[in-house]
Amino acid sequence: MTSGQEVAALMKQEIGEQPEVWRRLLASDQFDGPAQQIAQRRPRMVVLAARGTSDHAALYAKYLIEVVLQLPAGLASPSTISAYGAKPDFRDVLVFGVSQSGGSPDLIRYLQVARAQGALTVAVTNNADSELAQAVELHLDVLAGPERAVAATKTYTAELLALYLLLDKVRGGSATAKPLPDLGEELLAQEPHIADQAQRYRFAQRLVTTARGYSYPTAREAALKLMETSYLSAQAFSAADLMHGPLAVIDTQVPVLAVVADGPGGHTMHPVLERLCEVGADVFTVGTADAVRKSTGGLVLPGSVPEEVSPILEILPFQQLALHLAVARGGNPDAPRGLRKVTETL
Amino acid sequence: MTSGQEVAALMKQEIGEQPEVWRRLLASDQFDGPAQQIAQRRPRMVVLAARGTSDHAALYAKYLIEVVLQLPAGLASPSTISAYGAKPDFRDVLVFGVSQSGGSPDLIRYLQVARAQGALTVAVTNNADSELAQAVELHLDVLAGPERAVAATKTYTAELLALYLLLDKVRGGSATAKPLPDLGEELLAQEPHIADQAQRYRFAQRLVTTARGYSYPTAREAALKLMETSYLSAQAFSAADLMHGPLAVIDTQVPVLAVVADGPGGHTMHPVLERLCEVGADVFTVGTADAVRKSTGGLVLPGSVPEEVSPILEILPFQQLALHLAVARGGNPDAPRGLRKVTETL
Repeated sequence: MTSGQEVAALMKQEIGEQPEVWRRLLASDQFDGPAQQIAQRRPRMVVLAARGTSDHAALYAKYLIEVVLQLPAGLASPSTISAYGAKPDFRDVLVFGVSQSGGSPDLIRYLQVARAQGALTVAVTNNADSELAQAVELHLDVLAGPERAVAATKTYTAELLALYLLLDKVRGGSATAKPLPDLGEELLAQEPHIADQAQRYRFAQRLVTTARGYSYPTAREAALKLMETSYLSAQAFSAADLMHGPLAVIDTQVPVLAVVADGPGGHTMHPVLERLCEVGADVFTVGTADAVRKSTGGLVLPGSVPEEVSPILEILPFQQLALHLAVARGGNPDAPRGLRKVTETL
Repeated sequence: MTSGQEVAALMKQEIGEQPEVWRRLLASDQFDGPAQQIAQRRPRMVVLAARGTSDHAALYAKYLIEVVLQLPAGLASPSTISAYGAKPDFRDVLVFGVSQSGGSPDLIRYLQVARAQGALTVAVTNNADSELAQAVELHLDVLAGPERAVAATKTYTAELLALYLLLDKVRGGSATAKPLPDLGEELLAQEPHIADQAQRYRFAQRLVTTARGYSYPTAREAALKLMETSYLSAQAFSAADLMHGPLAVIDTQVPVLAVVADGPGGHTMHPVLERLCEVGADVFTVGTADAVRKSTGGLVLPGSVPEEVSPILEILPFQQLALHLAVARGGNPDAPRGLRKVTETL
């Protein structure tokens, strides 16, 4: 039993609100206009600028853009503009700024320069009045409502879903995301299982997360959440990169959290699970029943959604894990040391 | 005193060969033809595909391309093509594949599809006979000679310099890289100082590396080298991202390695060093005298080269640190556990 309900009250509440936020986004008509404008401009390539948790939403969108829209896409290094004063030629480029606060000066500057250099610019924020939202041509509101816990949870999945709904609309639209709120509720109800798992990591010093394809951003975000709230070293690796070197750090003392969705990206994880098993790693997998069977333990994702929307669900148990682990270690994930809610980097 | 000269013989030798490899590259005329072809094709965007150590060379080139060539650039997620079968529209896109072996199937596939979809393709490898080199229109040989230690050292800086010399040639050419071999020798001679520093981390469980701009790839590569050889958790953060969350993991038990070059990117590190000082972090800085003074300890880089070539030098002390730390911990960096020299990911 954890006694964390009070210390982690904000984070717990905001994790629980997510299915409701998704229903709000699914009912919103804000995607039609921007999708139409993007389709009309026929961009040749896409750049996404973001920091921290929002950078993982941007990474998810990068996969979507390459696979679904068949356009080359890349993540921005904002310092090329903010520190080095670069003015790249952005004609025919679609540039996204993703930020829950819409307040980070380097992102605002990046979007301003991109727009002046010919890009079609889009901001995805939880604050329609923010400077980032004002700096661009198209703004999407992720409709998450005020987020008060320092560790972002509901704004993350709201960013994922808003980006999905926009990009899905650009290709013509589908009903793929419809089942997510109900499945999210079903998944969140597994919290007791996750709370038990948190006890297992009570004294872990470091931990590795891994996935590939659409789910790789989930591994990144899971690692960040664990670091922010529980102060352990959590490192995320694309499963392909893991095999290229960092596998050396994994032994029986370094637990692995894997994400294995039901699709081509998840499929590439099976040889990785086997290799991890060979080196004696302790692996907890969130994903398909098949993958969980190949692991030390895990949680099977409910329902069966296409891999392209799976990341919106997959992160929920890791958010709960971050919360319960922080509490188990005597911390308070609502107020992690050393962090402020809005970080301004120049 | 370490007794590691024998167990780490290959890695030590290959670290020492670097200035000679750079002299070979500086004398090579292989860059003129490809630079001319790139300039003639006038690409509108650049995508770089790589894995592991080579991914850090690709990240360095991304900064160069945006700042020096003023083109949007992004790192590829090879799985969008190899796992999801995407066929993005690559017309007007310059696509690089960077790989010492030139043998990883997902990279070969990525370059093949990019070429078929209209990209101008370039391979940067240490093996002119590799499948990657054969799959593309333009090939650069990094001329590092056979690399036998599992942890890549000389092929990394050779990739950096080859990419620099090509891109510098595209913009018209300069003598900026000329002093590097002499400065590299001067820097390598500081090895005893680094060997002492390795003793300080003998019992460290985890460690954070950080930098921004051109030097950020150095922080990433330093972390990977330490993980590969010494099995500690080394996490690299862009200094901007560090301030957005992971700062929470840093306390007096988590040493920080910072890279602060002499230029705009290095300049943005000073407030970060101050913040790290506030939280009581133990910081070892490789970079300017000013930055070293603001740290717990450090190593001042010799000479004064523009930030755009500084990463070629900066990594040397971290390679030595990885070697000495591995030996101090009783390991053999020439044969790290769990790793093979050529990793094939599909």
